[in-house]
Amino acid sequence: MTTYTVNFEPVGRGGECQSNETLLDCARRLGVGIISICGGEGIFHCCKVQVLAGTVSEPTSNELEAFSSQELEDGWRLACQTYPASDCKLGVPPESMTTPQRTQVEGLEIAAQLEPPVKAYHVPMSASSLSDPQADADRLLEVLNRQYQLHCGKVDIDALRTLSPQLRAWGWQCQATVRHEEVIAFSPWPSRQLGLAIDLGTTKVAGYLVDLSNGWTLAAKGVMNPQISYGEDIISRITGVINSPDEGAQLQKLVVETINQLAIDLCIEVDANTGEIVEAVVVGNTAMHHLFLGLPVEQLAFSPFVPAVSRAVDIKARDLGLGIAPWAYVHLLPNIAGFVGADHVAMLLATDIWQAEGPTLALDIGTNTEVSLINKGRITSVSCASGPAFEGGHIRDGMRAARGAIEHLRIVGNSIHYQTIDQVPPIGICGSGVLDAMAQLYLAGVIDKGGRMTDSHPRVHINKKQREFVLVSEEEGSGHPSIVITQQDIRELQLAKAAIRTGIQVLLEANSRSEEEIEQVIIAGAFGTYIDVSSALTIGMLPSLPLDRFRQVGNAAGMGAKLALLSRGKRAEAQTIASQVQYIELASIPDFNQTFVQAGYIGRYRMRYGKREGID
Amino acid sequence: MTTYTVNFEPVGRGGECQSNETLLDCARRLGVGIISICGGEGIFHCCKVQVLAGTVSEPTSNELEAFSSQELEDGWRLACQTYPASDCKLGVPPESMTTPQRTQVEGLEIAAQLEPPVKAYHVPMSASSLSDPQADADRLLEVLNRQYQLHCGKVDIDALRTLSPQLRAWGWQCQATVRHEEVIAFSPWPSRQLGLAIDLGTTKVAGYLVDLSNGWTLAAKGVMNPQISYGEDIISRITGVINSPDEGAQLQKLVVETINQLAIDLCIEVDANTGEIVEAVVVGNTAMHHLFLGLPVEQLAFSPFVPAVSRAVDIKARDLGLGIAPWAYVHLLPNIAGFVGADHVAMLLATDIWQAEGPTLALDIGTNTEVSLINKGRITSVSCASGPAFEGGHIRDGMRAARGAIEHLRIVGNSIHYQTIDQVPPIGICGSGVLDAMAQLYLAGVIDKGGRMTDSHPRVHINKKQREFVLVSEEEGSGHPSIVITQQDIRELQLAKAAIRTGIQVLLEANSRSEEEIEQVIIAGAFGTYIDVSSALTIGMLPSLPLDRFRQVGNAAGMGAKLALLSRGKRAEAQTIASQVQYIELASIPDFNQTFVQAGYIGRYRMRYGKREGID
Repeated sequence: MTTYTVNFEPVGRGGECQSNETLLDCARRLGVGIISICGGEGIFHCCKVQVLAGTVSEPTSNELEAFSSQELEDGWRLACQTYPASDCKLGVPPESMTTPQRTQVEGLEIAAQLEPPVKAYHVPMSASSLSDPQADADRLLEVLNRQYQLHCGKVDIDALRTLSPQLRAWGWQCQATVRHEEVIAFSPWPSRQLGLAIDLGTTKVAGYLVDLSNGWTLAAKGVMNPQISYGEDIISRITGVINSPDEGAQLQKLVVETINQLAIDLCIEVDANTGEIVEAVVVGNTAMHHLFLGLPVEQLAFSPFVPAVSRAVDIKARDLGLGIAPWAYVHLLPNIAGFVGADHVAMLLATDIWQAEGPTLALDIGTNTEVSLINKGRITSVSCASGPAFEGGHIRDGMRAARGAIEHLRIVGNSIHYQTIDQVPPIGICGSGVLDAMAQLYLAGVIDKGGRMTDSHPRVHINKKQREFVLVSEEEGSGHPSIVITQQDIRELQLAKAAIRTGIQVLLEANSRSEEEIEQVIIAGAFGTYIDVSSALTIGMLPSLPLDRFRQVGNAAGMGAKLALLSRGKRAEAQTIASQVQYIELASIPDFNQTFVQAGYIGRYRMRYGKREGID
Repeated sequence: MTTYTVNFEPVGRGGECQSNETLLDCARRLGVGIISICGGEGIFHCCKVQVLAGTVSEPTSNELEAFSSQELEDGWRLACQTYPASDCKLGVPPESMTTPQRTQVEGLEIAAQLEPPVKAYHVPMSASSLSDPQADADRLLEVLNRQYQLHCGKVDIDALRTLSPQLRAWGWQCQATVRHEEVIAFSPWPSRQLGLAIDLGTTKVAGYLVDLSNGWTLAAKGVMNPQISYGEDIISRITGVINSPDEGAQLQKLVVETINQLAIDLCIEVDANTGEIVEAVVVGNTAMHHLFLGLPVEQLAFSPFVPAVSRAVDIKARDLGLGIAPWAYVHLLPNIAGFVGADHVAMLLATDIWQAEGPTLALDIGTNTEVSLINKGRITSVSCASGPAFEGGHIRDGMRAARGAIEHLRIVGNSIHYQTIDQVPPIGICGSGVLDAMAQLYLAGVIDKGGRMTDSHPRVHINKKQREFVLVSEEEGSGHPSIVITQQDIRELQLAKAAIRTGIQVLLEANSRSEEEIEQVIIAGAFGTYIDVSSALTIGMLPSLPLDRFRQVGNAAGMGAKLALLSRGKRAEAQTIASQVQYIELASIPDFNQTFVQAGYIGRYRMRYGKREGID
């Protein structure tokens, strides 16, 4: 028996692993949460990892079944079936991770040419004297502009207020932080230049602390959006603001405080202070964007649902009360429409698919699902009111993806195999679990194509005049109340998945494209990251395409925000994306209702001109 | 006896005047304060007015003595000697006005091409709809830029926060206020565009409310600078800030509150509100400039006395807490040096003499006196520590130019003719009175060239071991304490006037010019406006030149601020002036002390290379 060193990325945790210990067991021992529904039997193919370096045991039959030969060649394996055969480095994809790490901060990393809008310059000067009594700021600007061929003419007032005593304390040299043609800060030379990227979600807020000099992400963290106490979805928050205008200010204050705390937490992790943050980029859906900036939201809630502003906004941190350097700018990427926001632009930017050749679909699944179709240089987008079911809302035993939530499940005969977040006894079911449940119920014949629950399964009971399927009974759940999926839950899920499928269909028709032509489907966002795509195909939420056309990219919006932090070119690209996108308002589509009804059916099928064409 | 209508400008007061009533009596009856020391006898030539329209009585012998034939032709008359012969319009120059109107707001008006940096545009739009759901701000910018060939890309966040509901309320049209390439405000069409010009003096603050659409001054007002309670002069305020850094914030708060109240008062006069003020220009000496902006001042107080910033500064009103439109910019004209500030630049700008051909001298007399010499396209400046004597400070019975101050006086034999502000019994003596007193004492032989007081006059007494000259005894002053000029007061005045004369001399020598070559002397500022220039020449404070080479221009700094409010070209000119000026630090002049000692002598004389050459 040999001992190897294994490292799990991008979590960055590593340690020793015996040659007779599976990678799954090792990961769990090290606190790296990898999903395992079957408990290590290799039958549900959920604990996928990628061998990035080193060698491992030969693939088992389960693995040969789970992966194509190309995938095996690329290093894909099931953690529960694999033993190390040398020191090795393993990549854990977002969809294989359990929720404790699901802070919405993971996502693909795309390299961008490092050209941040904020740049630091070393400025050595001669001291002022009676024979050379030039003013401090003028002296500095003269040297800076001459030495670096710049045209800075403006100095931020907060920076200016510190300059004179500091120049003298620093011996007549300093680091000048320049943004466009404005000097926004002075610091001792050399000083760190940090950036903050924020993905401002309706439910969660993800933050990334980035070193602007090399593009490295120094720390990442996700927290809940406390605005939830004012309404779980955007519409209820907007309604609150319309009914009580003070609430707008309260919502803004809450989110600013949250970002401020997030910035502090991120800085503590790397022994930095928030005053070193010289630029921030914030992306969010249009409503969150508006609430953050203190913009009016009423016009978002009523037809024709227009934003106050779509183009990119730059605003000084102090004008928002943001607790980073007061003279720092906060850049908000452009919005597309009232319900397709800067976070979608950021996703299109980060995945780089906005320039895709063949038809490509990009989805941000959430309470509101934004979908874009890229086709021959044209981008069309819709926003689908998919509702809260996928966040666990309006589902009898639904809950958010938190400790104790069933996140994945399989029905095997009369028994239910499930996995909960943190591997504790189940207390409810979250979005990805609900999606699995619907697919499994359909495959087991418990619900039919129309979503009607039959009593063909011993776990189906009638309670309060409606049928329900018991996932975990009180006895099974060690005394916790039972967890069920009701007929009503199925109806709720049908509405949700119909909304998404309809959106996709509307886009295809507007582009005269058929589903089979879609070359790639990008699924972004927290929920989209952790779903089992096969389940989504089984229930007909997504077009029935080969699995290898789907790509789950994690928090691509956050990645887009990071790119915009690091690259002026990427900001320009974001503006190009936003202005290229043609937004289609679903409410204006004549045969929307017919398509929606058809899209509510469960199963794998094709849709063409609002009609289903059966596959299974 | 006929009744005419007469109007006094620039006060704007008018009314009826009988053909047997002097213009002085009429003015007093109408509340227009015109100086009259001799009480209407025509002997002191102080109640000068200019007939701008209409005809008046023939000149008396006193007037023939007071004016050159050119001046008489130009309409100059003594108000106490002149009767109307038709309806007429009379100009009252600043130096003829009593203090109640001396709010530091009068000054010459120079026409500038109207090209304010802030401009309003009418923007009519089509309403948003499902088929045209463009965001509100983007829609507006598109129309604005297309219709007026602009390139606006930025919208102020405070403006943006109001836009969406207002566009709808205003029926999809509005007035957009544009500054450079930023839209700073939205208002209903059409709306007034007001500007605020502020001359921020150490002692007084003058404000002007201007209509940016036509350049008219709608209202003007002067108030005391409440920072006086923290120190009468700039150095004591700076020392206070150095010793207690909190004091900087307090001083800033005080001056901001003062300007805010001034803005309110000015707006009330013309039924406007402060939110209509879309741009402000502030000028002041460098220390006031720094205290207003919250910049550090320590480096101003120690050699080499450099400003934190010299170039023009633009800052949002909200960043200063200024109570005008929050998105409005405050523009501060450039400074020249630590003790030659933006107010001096404004004065040079307003008088237009910075481009003068022949040698021209420009003075701002105050606690600190800034002097510039314009010579062959070159501008050199000095700052002279003239001290508080001319503000009534360090003078035993000195006081500011306020009600009850002796502002002008003549010694005739044993009696003293004097005029007090508001024509009430005297309670002290202000700057212009002190200057007159020194000149009169010298002419009467009471003090000698060296400033020593003799006992050759019955009004000279010895009190506490020093000689003093009684201007008003207790009996003469209806029981008020007596008002005297002491030997010590004379010494104080000598220091003050020596500082100014030395500054002038240093400039002349640096330019290889002699006094006689000076073609014009511009005297600006409150004190400079109201002094009797002959007295200044009598004591040798100014070079002995023909009186017609002197021009008292009132608050030229305030006028310069107004020009900068109305004209981008004038702002550029100000920058040109500031960067052209060569500042000479008096402390660095080798023979400064020798010149200073010589310049302390009283009398009319020429100076050449630090030596006096007698004239009288």
